[in-house]
Amino acid sequence: MAITNDQRDEIDSARSVQQTTMRPTVAALEEMLFKPIPILDHGFIRVVDYMGDDTSVVQAARVSYGRGTRKVQEDKGLINYLMRHSHTTPFEMAEIKLHVKLPIFVARQWIRHRTASVNEYSARYSILDKEFYIPESSNLAAQATTNRQGRGIMLEGDEATRVLNLLRTDAERSYDGYLQLLNEHPETSEDDRLGLARELARMNLSLNFYTQWYWKIDLHNLMSFLRLRADPHAQYEIRVYAEAMLDILKRWVPLSYEAFLEHRLAGAHFSSTMMKALRRMLAGEQVDQQSSGLSKRDWDDFVHVINSPK
Amino acid sequence: MAITNDQRDEIDSARSVQQTTMRPTVAALEEMLFKPIPILDHGFIRVVDYMGDDTSVVQAARVSYGRGTRKVQEDKGLINYLMRHSHTTPFEMAEIKLHVKLPIFVARQWIRHRTASVNEYSARYSILDKEFYIPESSNLAAQATTNRQGRGIMLEGDEATRVLNLLRTDAERSYDGYLQLLNEHPETSEDDRLGLARELARMNLSLNFYTQWYWKIDLHNLMSFLRLRADPHAQYEIRVYAEAMLDILKRWVPLSYEAFLEHRLAGAHFSSTMMKALRRMLAGEQVDQQSSGLSKRDWDDFVHVINSPK
Amino acid sequence: MAITNDQRDEIDSARSVQQTTMRPTVAALEEMLFKPIPILDHGFIRVVDYMGDDTSVVQAARVSYGRGTRKVQEDKGLINYLMRHSHTTPFEMAEIKLHVKLPIFVARQWIRHRTASVNEYSARYSILDKEFYIPESSNLAAQATTNRQGRGIMLEGDEATRVLNLLRTDAERSYDGYLQLLNEHPETSEDDRLGLARELARMNLSLNFYTQWYWKIDLHNLMSFLRLRADPHAQYEIRVYAEAMLDILKRWVPLSYEAFLEHRLAGAHFSSTMMKALRRMLAGEQVDQQSSGLSKRDWDDFVHVINSPK
Amino acid sequence: MAITNDQRDEIDSARSVQQTTMRPTVAALEEMLFKPIPILDHGFIRVVDYMGDDTSVVQAARVSYGRGTRKVQEDKGLINYLMRHSHTTPFEMAEIKLHVKLPIFVARQWIRHRTASVNEYSARYSILDKEFYIPESSNLAAQATTNRQGRGIMLEGDEATRVLNLLRTDAERSYDGYLQLLNEHPETSEDDRLGLARELARMNLSLNFYTQWYWKIDLHNLMSFLRLRADPHAQYEIRVYAEAMLDILKRWVPLSYEAFLEHRLAGAHFSSTMMKALRRMLAGEQVDQQSSGLSKRDWDDFVHVINSPK
Repeated sequence: MAITNDQRDEIDSARSVQQTTMRPTVAALEEMLFKPIPILDHGFIRVVDYMGDDTSVVQAARVSYGRGTRKVQEDKGLINYLMRHSHTTPFEMAEIKLHVKLPIFVARQWIRHRTASVNEYSARYSILDKEFYIPESSNLAAQATTNRQGRGIMLEGDEATRVLNLLRTDAERSYDGYLQLLNEHPETSEDDRLGLARELARMNLSLNFYTQWYWKIDLHNLMSFLRLRADPHAQYEIRVYAEAMLDILKRWVPLSYEAFLEHRLAGAHFSSTMMKALRRMLAGEQVDQQSSGLSKRDWDDFVHVINSPK
Repeated sequence: MAITNDQRDEIDSARSVQQTTMRPTVAALEEMLFKPIPILDHGFIRVVDYMGDDTSVVQAARVSYGRGTRKVQEDKGLINYLMRHSHTTPFEMAEIKLHVKLPIFVARQWIRHRTASVNEYSARYSILDKEFYIPESSNLAAQATTNRQGRGIMLEGDEATRVLNLLRTDAERSYDGYLQLLNEHPETSEDDRLGLARELARMNLSLNFYTQWYWKIDLHNLMSFLRLRADPHAQYEIRVYAEAMLDILKRWVPLSYEAFLEHRLAGAHFSSTMMKALRRMLAGEQVDQQSSGLSKRDWDDFVHVINSPK
Repeated sequence: MAITNDQRDEIDSARSVQQTTMRPTVAALEEMLFKPIPILDHGFIRVVDYMGDDTSVVQAARVSYGRGTRKVQEDKGLINYLMRHSHTTPFEMAEIKLHVKLPIFVARQWIRHRTASVNEYSARYSILDKEFYIPESSNLAAQATTNRQGRGIMLEGDEATRVLNLLRTDAERSYDGYLQLLNEHPETSEDDRLGLARELARMNLSLNFYTQWYWKIDLHNLMSFLRLRADPHAQYEIRVYAEAMLDILKRWVPLSYEAFLEHRLAGAHFSSTMMKALRRMLAGEQVDQQSSGLSKRDWDDFVHVINSPK
Repeated sequence: MAITNDQRDEIDSARSVQQTTMRPTVAALEEMLFKPIPILDHGFIRVVDYMGDDTSVVQAARVSYGRGTRKVQEDKGLINYLMRHSHTTPFEMAEIKLHVKLPIFVARQWIRHRTASVNEYSARYSILDKEFYIPESSNLAAQATTNRQGRGIMLEGDEATRVLNLLRTDAERSYDGYLQLLNEHPETSEDDRLGLARELARMNLSLNFYTQWYWKIDLHNLMSFLRLRADPHAQYEIRVYAEAMLDILKRWVPLSYEAFLEHRLAGAHFSSTMMKALRRMLAGEQVDQQSSGLSKRDWDDFVHVINSPK
């Protein structure tokens, strides 16, 4: 992870400030506040700020004058009820702000979630560092042959080496070109030549270069993000960020986290036709794809969900 | 203002909790945290939680690793620049949560601002208190005759008294009907009769009854709200809430508040045709409505803005 | 339903205009375009405009150059796949605009869905008609005793009559007060007295008075609205609007409608613990609430969903 | 512009369908419907669908039963009034859908506008074509030296040639690497080797490669987009798209377009301090930066706006 010593000092300095507040405060989150959690080869997530905790969900649901919480058991029951019945507005009442460093092709998927606030580091005004993503050789999947969307078996040995070399060589060359276009480097730039505008030069960089942003989102929308991106079908390179966020969630709002796992991540959804098949099966009937009325693909999904706990 | 002793105790109890945090903390806001600011005859605004301060705007604009702030003068310049050039995303990085008690007809205007999170007290599940808004006699305006949208001269004496009596009598009767429909009152309800469902009975209440909600919004969208609702053309009954929020803003983010006043609230916008007239006037030319190319209404607006500082 | 002859003429006149277009056009929707569908005692929904149809969903999912559709069977399969896997963005590519007349207390629930565009008739500028909602006597439910949110058994006979009389009398009085405050009525107003500003007078009206608005929403967000508001737990008075919209959906986008029914409205969601119980039951085991690990309430939900097809 | 013959046929086929509708229809827009407007070297914008026209703005503002329009002069006055006073909701009542082909670095700026619906062509599932953006030599600006954000003087002669060669060579190499990684090319792929998953291989492409998407937005939010992106400070490569959209706007909603130009694009905004300086100048006083109270930068802005008509 590329945190320079200066950046480390900035973080330590921010962590050295302790103030008192009457706001809800989460000790387990304060512990990791500002510290980067390494992700992929150069990326990270840092919790930069947060507002509220599990009691904020309860407090808003009750529109209460004080903290609004009662016994842990009651609060837990209420949070479960809200989650199960998709009463989502109280979960909007807690908020978190992250500083994320991530490859551009991951950032392009991420930004599709529109209900968040974003401030991205601008390559129009600043010069990007030489940091690009190269997968671990253990993550080099071939194109899946069964469907168009995802990874199949792993590349190994020479094949893997060849891919990694190609990725690395092209990224290096891409960055060299970028620097030449800019011609702003204190040592290597040529004095007799104008550099290309930064907003243009950046187009020479490849999509595995790292960018970074501040990203702020409420708890409800964060869980919507995680439901899609912590899913096994999500691309590995965004899923590792989602998994780090699940850990953050667990520290920040343990009751909401549990309810989220119970009802969303590890829950299951059945269509009307699936429910009909299920009812027949519960009545002891033998049901196969043919008689279920489901397509081959839906039947496979159905059987998979019924048999395999997430 | 209708804060019961129990509610007062809840608030005091919440204020008695002091914890340490590394997050940005605003002493001037902590001072008033949770305390109700009285508005109209039974309404209030309470700051329930907040995230970030002026330095959060600066920090996000710089996508920095530490607190991101430099000298106050530099931060102030940056915030001014962001405000002037409508670089709005850094202002989304601070967030505030309010508990508001307000008449239903005000709530209906308020809710039109969609970029906020809301949890309203539900008259579907609970019984509303007997609290309705009656204007001060000094706020009883007649319908404006010059335009259709606003207030004209003030009602006085008998006319005012008559209006106030009518409003009060009708609201009382409306609440009596509500209670009779519900038939849930511990003392006056009739045992031999079913009460109407709460979700139905509430329809008998008039629009001046008070409701309450938790409302959470980021700094950028709060300023958009205030630009419309702290404007002299806004209805008085929502403007008093906006004015209280301006005070909160001033305590919370003094630099953003100043920039907001300078560029938004006290700034002025001219159309292309107005600019042409202005340029001619600056060149010493006499310009009247006819020669300006502006409509009568736009010309009046123009002259008003040029002559009268807000 | 209160459509005046003038309004009827306006609608007929709008329907008399026929133009040619290359845009996707839905004959079954054109047939009902602009015509009010009566709802409750004075309300209605009118389809005012629409953009796209089922093929627009397919076209966007394929990012195609032409119409993007293939065989009906393929399009249907794709739409089902998108719905099942919550690929929601293609459903945002069709849009509909409705003119709705509805009681204010219904409007207050409705507006909580923020992802729509709204233009409401303004009682700040205009005078509302004397139209208020009085339930059918067959819809007068008592407060449920088993839970706090909903209706229990029906009021009948004298009890019902009494409720209806009270509602009607209070609404009449509320409107009389409104007119007196305004003092703008051509016949009954008193010349020697100023009328109260409209923006103030409206506060005397009760929540069962009708308002109206233009409401525009995309297909995805419309379905999210309908999933909540066409649900049996939704309040009757908003559910009848949702049901009318389901009919509109069926005419407009029959394939999306079917997929919506199959996967959303008539589908079922199980939590992780419910799935564990289900797997044991499918394995032939006897499971009761105790051994399921579910709370009483969740167990009842579970059993209900398993046994009763929607 | 890279429209293949097949795509051209698809477009022609879509244009050959003529249907009748009672919806508002805009002849000037129908004329260009589906046809690609070439932008940059391989990009385009195509209008794929639209809903409403200027009369839809008027109709929603009046919440009318029929078409809602009166005389053109009255409609024009109303639209001007709405625009001038930022009554934005009626402008949300018209909607447009575009198919856009654009370089990825432009797409990254574009997507920051969150109030639109987007379906992007997925390089996770499909293989991108060999199409990348190379600027015209007349657009090769050097980095501005006076500020950090923008272009300075133009590169010429050898300097320009060198830049163009570098950009072209690197993009070619980037695509070659992409194809090798994929190893799916019918002719050149090596049978004995697994191809890398598409979702991974795409990371080797540089940011000037073209992507494409369906983009749907309402008129109000489109104008917000254009206010920022048709501005002279916007990057040239996104501004050309904005300018093409201005032409579309002019055909689609000529009255709204005129009002937008008058009040937004060609209007001017002054801060409180600027207004004070302006008032003194109008009173015949000599004002310079020092006495204005404005910073050097703000004073320059101020003088520029006063002197130079847009």
